[in-house]
Amino acid sequence: MSKGTVVLAYSGGLDTSCILVWLKEQGFDVITYMANIGQEEDFEAAQKKAESLGAKKVYIEDLRAEFVEDFIWPSVQGNAIYEDRYLLGTAIARPCIARRQVEIARKEGANFVSHGATGKGNDQIRFELTCYALYPEVKIIAPWRIPDFYNRFKGRTDLMEYAQKHGIPVPVTPKAPWSMDANLMHISYESGILENPKSQAPVDLYLMTKSPQDSPNTPDELEIEFKNGVPIMVTNMKEGQSKTSPLDIFSYLNEIGGKHGVGRIDIVENRFIGMKSRGIYETPGGTILLAAHLDIETFTMDKEVRRIKQGLGIKFSELVYNGFWYSPECEFVRHCIAKSQENVEGKVQLSVFKGHIYILGRESPKSLYNEELVSMDVQGDYDPCDASGFIRINAVRLREHNRLQGFSNSN
Amino acid sequence: MSKGTVVLAYSGGLDTSCILVWLKEQGFDVITYMANIGQEEDFEAAQKKAESLGAKKVYIEDLRAEFVEDFIWPSVQGNAIYEDRYLLGTAIARPCIARRQVEIARKEGANFVSHGATGKGNDQIRFELTCYALYPEVKIIAPWRIPDFYNRFKGRTDLMEYAQKHGIPVPVTPKAPWSMDANLMHISYESGILENPKSQAPVDLYLMTKSPQDSPNTPDELEIEFKNGVPIMVTNMKEGQSKTSPLDIFSYLNEIGGKHGVGRIDIVENRFIGMKSRGIYETPGGTILLAAHLDIETFTMDKEVRRIKQGLGIKFSELVYNGFWYSPECEFVRHCIAKSQENVEGKVQLSVFKGHIYILGRESPKSLYNEELVSMDVQGDYDPCDASGFIRINAVRLREHNRLQGFSNSN
Amino acid sequence: MSKGTVVLAYSGGLDTSCILVWLKEQGFDVITYMANIGQEEDFEAAQKKAESLGAKKVYIEDLRAEFVEDFIWPSVQGNAIYEDRYLLGTAIARPCIARRQVEIARKEGANFVSHGATGKGNDQIRFELTCYALYPEVKIIAPWRIPDFYNRFKGRTDLMEYAQKHGIPVPVTPKAPWSMDANLMHISYESGILENPKSQAPVDLYLMTKSPQDSPNTPDELEIEFKNGVPIMVTNMKEGQSKTSPLDIFSYLNEIGGKHGVGRIDIVENRFIGMKSRGIYETPGGTILLAAHLDIETFTMDKEVRRIKQGLGIKFSELVYNGFWYSPECEFVRHCIAKSQENVEGKVQLSVFKGHIYILGRESPKSLYNEELVSMDVQGDYDPCDASGFIRINAVRLREHNRLQGFSNSN
Amino acid sequence: MSKGTVVLAYSGGLDTSCILVWLKEQGFDVITYMANIGQEEDFEAAQKKAESLGAKKVYIEDLRAEFVEDFIWPSVQGNAIYEDRYLLGTAIARPCIARRQVEIARKEGANFVSHGATGKGNDQIRFELTCYALYPEVKIIAPWRIPDFYNRFKGRTDLMEYAQKHGIPVPVTPKAPWSMDANLMHISYESGILENPKSQAPVDLYLMTKSPQDSPNTPDELEIEFKNGVPIMVTNMKEGQSKTSPLDIFSYLNEIGGKHGVGRIDIVENRFIGMKSRGIYETPGGTILLAAHLDIETFTMDKEVRRIKQGLGIKFSELVYNGFWYSPECEFVRHCIAKSQENVEGKVQLSVFKGHIYILGRESPKSLYNEELVSMDVQGDYDPCDASGFIRINAVRLREHNRLQGFSNSN
Repeated sequence: MSKGTVVLAYSGGLDTSCILVWLKEQGFDVITYMANIGQEEDFEAAQKKAESLGAKKVYIEDLRAEFVEDFIWPSVQGNAIYEDRYLLGTAIARPCIARRQVEIARKEGANFVSHGATGKGNDQIRFELTCYALYPEVKIIAPWRIPDFYNRFKGRTDLMEYAQKHGIPVPVTPKAPWSMDANLMHISYESGILENPKSQAPVDLYLMTKSPQDSPNTPDELEIEFKNGVPIMVTNMKEGQSKTSPLDIFSYLNEIGGKHGVGRIDIVENRFIGMKSRGIYETPGGTILLAAHLDIETFTMDKEVRRIKQGLGIKFSELVYNGFWYSPECEFVRHCIAKSQENVEGKVQLSVFKGHIYILGRESPKSLYNEELVSMDVQGDYDPCDASGFIRINAVRLREHNRLQGFSNSN
Repeated sequence: MSKGTVVLAYSGGLDTSCILVWLKEQGFDVITYMANIGQEEDFEAAQKKAESLGAKKVYIEDLRAEFVEDFIWPSVQGNAIYEDRYLLGTAIARPCIARRQVEIARKEGANFVSHGATGKGNDQIRFELTCYALYPEVKIIAPWRIPDFYNRFKGRTDLMEYAQKHGIPVPVTPKAPWSMDANLMHISYESGILENPKSQAPVDLYLMTKSPQDSPNTPDELEIEFKNGVPIMVTNMKEGQSKTSPLDIFSYLNEIGGKHGVGRIDIVENRFIGMKSRGIYETPGGTILLAAHLDIETFTMDKEVRRIKQGLGIKFSELVYNGFWYSPECEFVRHCIAKSQENVEGKVQLSVFKGHIYILGRESPKSLYNEELVSMDVQGDYDPCDASGFIRINAVRLREHNRLQGFSNSN
Repeated sequence: MSKGTVVLAYSGGLDTSCILVWLKEQGFDVITYMANIGQEEDFEAAQKKAESLGAKKVYIEDLRAEFVEDFIWPSVQGNAIYEDRYLLGTAIARPCIARRQVEIARKEGANFVSHGATGKGNDQIRFELTCYALYPEVKIIAPWRIPDFYNRFKGRTDLMEYAQKHGIPVPVTPKAPWSMDANLMHISYESGILENPKSQAPVDLYLMTKSPQDSPNTPDELEIEFKNGVPIMVTNMKEGQSKTSPLDIFSYLNEIGGKHGVGRIDIVENRFIGMKSRGIYETPGGTILLAAHLDIETFTMDKEVRRIKQGLGIKFSELVYNGFWYSPECEFVRHCIAKSQENVEGKVQLSVFKGHIYILGRESPKSLYNEELVSMDVQGDYDPCDASGFIRINAVRLREHNRLQGFSNSN
Repeated sequence: MSKGTVVLAYSGGLDTSCILVWLKEQGFDVITYMANIGQEEDFEAAQKKAESLGAKKVYIEDLRAEFVEDFIWPSVQGNAIYEDRYLLGTAIARPCIARRQVEIARKEGANFVSHGATGKGNDQIRFELTCYALYPEVKIIAPWRIPDFYNRFKGRTDLMEYAQKHGIPVPVTPKAPWSMDANLMHISYESGILENPKSQAPVDLYLMTKSPQDSPNTPDELEIEFKNGVPIMVTNMKEGQSKTSPLDIFSYLNEIGGKHGVGRIDIVENRFIGMKSRGIYETPGGTILLAAHLDIETFTMDKEVRRIKQGLGIKFSELVYNGFWYSPECEFVRHCIAKSQENVEGKVQLSVFKGHIYILGRESPKSLYNEELVSMDVQGDYDPCDASGFIRINAVRLREHNRLQGFSNSN
C-alpha cells in the first residue's frame, strides 16, 4: 500500500531523478512537477524521463509571466537587494515555484511535497517556508537531510551507480566544476571550484551575458516607462522597437543587458543559516531595472517617504532572501512598498554599454522636481533669508553641545 | 573703525573676489582662506589676487592628506552613499574646509567667517553647521542670503560690472553653462543647462574621467589591502606598482578609475532644504573603494553586525549630506562604525574596465568564511538534520498565521 | 484700505486679544477662529469678547469628535509616544486646529492666518507646517516672531497696559506661575516656575486627574473592545455601563483615568528646534488606551509585523511631535500603521487604581495565541526535537565567530 | 566506562533531580552546578541533595554581584524592554548562568552540559546559544527534547514515580498551578492556569511585590545618582539612608519597589520560536531604574544621539530576549550603547507609591538643558525670527507636494 502521494519538484537532472525513484522505493506515489521560470530546458524530454521513471503524473507549468508580475515586479518596486549587491534572482523564484507545487498538492490530495535542495543552502528554507505557510499541514520530504538518503548517496558516483541500476538515464557530458541555477531573472554559480573565495571565476562560466570585453563597442539606449513603480514599456531609442507586456519587457531587458555584459557580480554573502558562501551571479535585465527604478523613484517620491521606504526595502530584501516571501511581515511590507509607488511614474532614458548602465535623463508627470524652485538663475517661490533661520535653528543643538559637553576631538 | 575681522573662504573666482571687496566696503577686515583639497587651481595666482584686492592676510592650506584620512576614510568605512547613489564627495569636503577656517578664525581672533555659497544649496548648511558646532559664538556672513547683496548682484553681469569698477580681474574665458565643484574625491556639475532633468549631460563635461567609449580596451587589475576597514596598500597586479600612504593610495585609485571612466553618475537628489536637484558626478577612486570595501567587509564581518552597521551607515550618510559631520550624533555614529571595522582586513582583487569594477577574489586572515563548512562536497562541522528543525521552528508562526488569519491572497 | 483678511486662532485670553487688536492696527481685517477640542472654556464669552474687539467674523468650531476620530485614534493605532514618555496630546491637537483654520481661510478668501504661539516652541511649527501643507500660498503672521511686536510686548505688563488702553478686558485673577495647554486628550504645564528641572511640580497644579494619594481606594475595572486597532466600546465591568461612540468612549476613559490619578508625567523632552524643555502632562484616557492597545495588539499581531510596525510607530511619533502630521511621509506611515491594524480586535480587561493600569486578561476572535501549542502540559502540533536544530543552526554563526575572531571579553 | 562528564544546571527541584539520576543511568558522570542569582533557595539543602543523588562534584556559585554589574547594568543603559513591556529579567539571567556553567565545564574538562529547560521555551535557546558561543565544541544534553526522556516522563506523575524508585526526595507541598522563575531582577509566572490569556492572575501569586491595594499609604522618595548611565548611589530622601555598591543599590530598589507594589505586568509576548505565550512578571527594582534612567538620559543626551541609541536599545532587547547576549552583534550593540552613556550622569528624584513611580525632578553637571535658552521670560541666545526661516524651509517640500501630488485626503 502506498504511503501517500508526493509532489516532487523535479528538474530532470540526475539528483531529482534518483529522488523520484528512491521515493517510489520508499513506498510513495510520485507526481513530478516542473516549473518553467525561464531556464533553458528541454521540458518535453524531462516529461518523458519522469514518465519513464514511474511518475504517476507529470506537471510542467509555465510560470514565466507570473514570475515576472508577482515576484520580479514587487522586487523592482522595493529596489530589492541583499547585502547591497545581490538582486535575489534565486530567492524570488523559490516561492513562485513552491506556490504552484502546493496548489498541485492540494488539488491532487497529496500530503507530501519533496525537493532536491541541499541541507546547507537557502533554497530548502525558501521552498519549505512557502509550503508551510500556504499549506500548514503538508509534510515535507527533503532527502538531502535524511541520513538514510545522504549516507547512501555520498557523492556523484553513488548517484550514477544508482541511476544505472534503476534505468535512470545518466548524463553524458561531464558536470561543470560548479553548480548553477538559472531562471528568467538570473543565473547563479556556486560551489565546486568557486568555493575558494580567492579563485577568479572562469571566463567561460557566464551563459546569460557576454563578456564586456567582447560586447559591442556601441551602446544601446533605452527608454523605460514606469507606472506604479513597475515598467510598462521599454523602447530602444535608436531602433524604435517597444515592448509592453511584463514578460516581453523583462525578456528584452535581459537581451540588451546580456548583449552588453551587464549585471555580473562575484560576491561572498551570508546565508540565512549563518554561513558565508561565495556566489557568482549574472542578472542583466534586473540590473538595468534597478538603476532605472532608483532614478524614477527619487524623481517622483518625497524624500522622507523615500527614506522610510528605503528601510522597508532593506527589510523586504532580507525577508525574501531568508525565504519569508509568504509571511505576514513580508505581505505587510509588500503592501507598504506598493503604496509608496503610487506616484512613481515617468520615463527614464539610459545607455547600456560594456557592463554598465548610464542614466541619461528622466521626465515624469508626477515629478516633485521643480526646475524654477531649484534654479540658480531665478529665485522661484523661495526666500534665501529663510535658509539663515533654518541653519541657525539646526545649529541650536550643536552649539549647546559644544558649550556643555564638547566634541571629543576635532575629527 | 573696522567692524571686525572676517575669515573668508576664498576660491579666487569672480564671486568670492567680489565678496572680498564688498566685505571691505562694509567695513570689515578680510582674511582670505583657500583650502587645497585636491582641486586643480593656481594657488599662487589666487594668493596674489587676494593680496591685490586688499586681503589683510592670505591663508592657503594644503588639506589633502587630512581630507583623505579624516573624511574620506571614515566614509569608506561607512560605505557612505546618499540615496543609494551619491558618494558624498562635496558633502565631506565642506566640514574639512570649514574646520580649518574656524581654526584660523580663532587663531586670528576673528569673530566672523564668510563664504560664497548660494542660498538654495546644501553647502551653505554644511559650512555653517560646522562653524557653529566648532565655534559656537562665531558670526557668519553669507552674502548670497543678504538682500543688500543679492539684490545688487542679480546675475553675472552685475558681478562683472562691479569687478571692473573695483579692479577685480575679470575672467576672460566664458563661463561653462553649468557650475562645478572639484576636489580630490570628485567633481560635481549642476545648474545651468543641467537643470532640465531630461537633458543629457554634454559628453565634454567630464574632467576627471575618460569616457568609457574612449577608455582602454584592456582592464587594469588592482589588489587593495584593507586594515580596520581602510585601505593600507593598493597594488597594480600587472605592473607590480604599489602605493601605501593614504593620499597616494587615493590619488592612484583616482588615476586608474579616471583612466577607465569609472564613477560617473547622473542623478536627481533631495537637498536638505527639501528641493530636488539634478547633479552629475564623477568619483573614480571613491567608486572603486566602495566596491572593494563592501567586498572585504562582507567577507570578514558577522552578518548581524553587518545589518546593524548598514543601518548606521545609511544614517551616517544622511547626516553627512545634511551637514552634520560635526554633531554629537555623527560623532557617535562614526565611533560605532569604526568599532565595527576592527576585523575588516584583507585583500580584494578587482578589475577596472570601461566604467565598471569587477571583483575577482578576496582573502583575509580575519575572514569568517569557512570553506569546509560551506562546501557542497564535504560535510564539515554541520548536521543537515539541524536544518529541518530550524525550518520547522521558523514555520511555527507562519503556519499559525495561515490557520488563524490567513494570507490575504496568494501573491 | 485693508491689507487683507487674517484668520486668527483665538483663545479668548490676553495674548490673542491683544494680537487681534494689533492686527487691526496694522490694517488687517480679522476673523477669529476658536476650536473646541475639549478644553474648559466659556466659548460664548469668548465670542462676545472677539466681537467687541472688532472681529469681522467669529468662528467657534466644535472639533471634539473629529479630534478623537481623526487624530487620537490613529495615535492609538500607532502607540504614539515621543521619547518613550510623552503621549503627544498637544502635538496631535495642532494639525486638527490648523486644518479647520485653513478651511475657514479658504472659504473666507483670507490670504493670511495668524496665531499666538511663541517663537521658541513646537506649536508654531505644528500650526504653520499644517497651514503650508494644506494651503501652500497662505501667508502666516506670527506676532511673537515679529520684532515690532515682541519688542513692544516684552512681558505681561506691556500686554496689560495695551489691553487697558484698547478696551481689552483684563484678567482679574492672577496668572498661574506656569503656562498651560488643555484639550480633550491632555493638559500640559510648562514654563514659569517649572523651568527649573529640579523643582518639583506643585501638588495643586493638576486639573484633569486627582492625586493618587486622594484617589479612591477601590479600583475600577474596565473592558475595552477594539476593532481595527481602535476602541469601539468601553464597559465598566462592575457597574455595567458602556460607551460606544468615539467621543463618549474617550471622555469616559478620561473620567475614570482622572478619578484614579492616571497619566501624570514630569519629563524633560527635546523640542524640534533643538532645546530641551521641561513639561508636566496629564493624559488620563490616553494612558489607559495605550496600555490596552499594546495588549490587544501583541495578542493579535504577528511578532515580525509588530517589530516593523513598532519602528513605524516611533517614526510616526517623531513626525507628529515635529509638526509633520500633514506631510507625505506621515500620511504614508499612517496608511501603513492602519493596514497593520486590520486584525487588531478583541477585548482587554483592565483595572485602574491609584495612578496605575493593570491588565487583567484579554480575548480575541483574531488572536494568534494558541493555547494548545504553547501549553506545558500538552504537546500540540509541535515537536521539541525541532528546537535542537533551530538552536544549532542559530549557533553556526556564533561558533564560527568564536573560532575565527573570538569574543573580545566575557561580558 | 563513563560516557564523559556533564555539567548539569541544577535547581534542587524534582525535574533536575530526576535528570541528574537519569544522566547517571545513561552512563555520564554528573557535576551539578547551581547559580545563586538572587532567588530564594536553600542552597545547602540542594547541595546535600545533589551529593546524595550521586553528583561527582557540586558547584554552588554566588553570581549576584556579577549578575547586577555585567547583565542588569547594561540593560539599564539600554533601557532594555521587549515588546514595549517586558524588562527581560529571565532573559538576562540565562547568559549569566550559562557563562559560569561553561567556565566550570572547561575547568573540569567536561565535554557536556545539560539543563532542565523545556522544549517550547526561550530558556533552552538562551542557555545553549551562550554555551555554543563561549564553548563551540561543547555537546549539549537537553533531556526535555530527547524522545527517550520526554516519552518516559510525560507528566509530573511519571517524575514522582521515578523519584520514589530512585531515592529522590519528593516535594511534600503540592506544586503551584503555574511555574515560576525567580532571580534578583524579577519573578516570572507562566503556564498552568495562566495559560488561558483571559483568566486573571490570582491575587496571592506575587512573591516579590505587595499588592498596591495593601501597600503603604505614604510614598517613599528616592534620589538615584547615575554615572555612565548606571546608578552609583540611591538615597532615601526622607530617611537619609544610602546604598552605593551595585548589589546593594539594586537590592534596595527591589525592597522599596516591592513594598509599594511596583513592576507587576500581565502580558502576552512572542517567544523566539514563534509562539505567543502569557506571562506575569514582577520587576520592582528594574522598573524604578528604567523610569529613572529614561529621565536622566533624556536630560543629558543629545536628541539625535538619543534617537539612534533608542533604535540600538530595541535591537539589544530583541537580541537578549532571543538568547544572543553572547553574539558578535550584541557585543557590538552593547559597546555602542555604553559609548552613548558617557555623559549620562546626574541625580533623579522620584516618588514610589501604590505601584507607580513619579519623577519629581532631576539635575546634572552634564545636562544639555539650558534654562535660559528655553525660558519663556528671557530671550537667551536665541532669535525668534530664525524660527520663521526654519519653518519655511521645512515647508518647502510640503508645499511642493501639495502642488504637485496633493494629499490623498484631509485626514
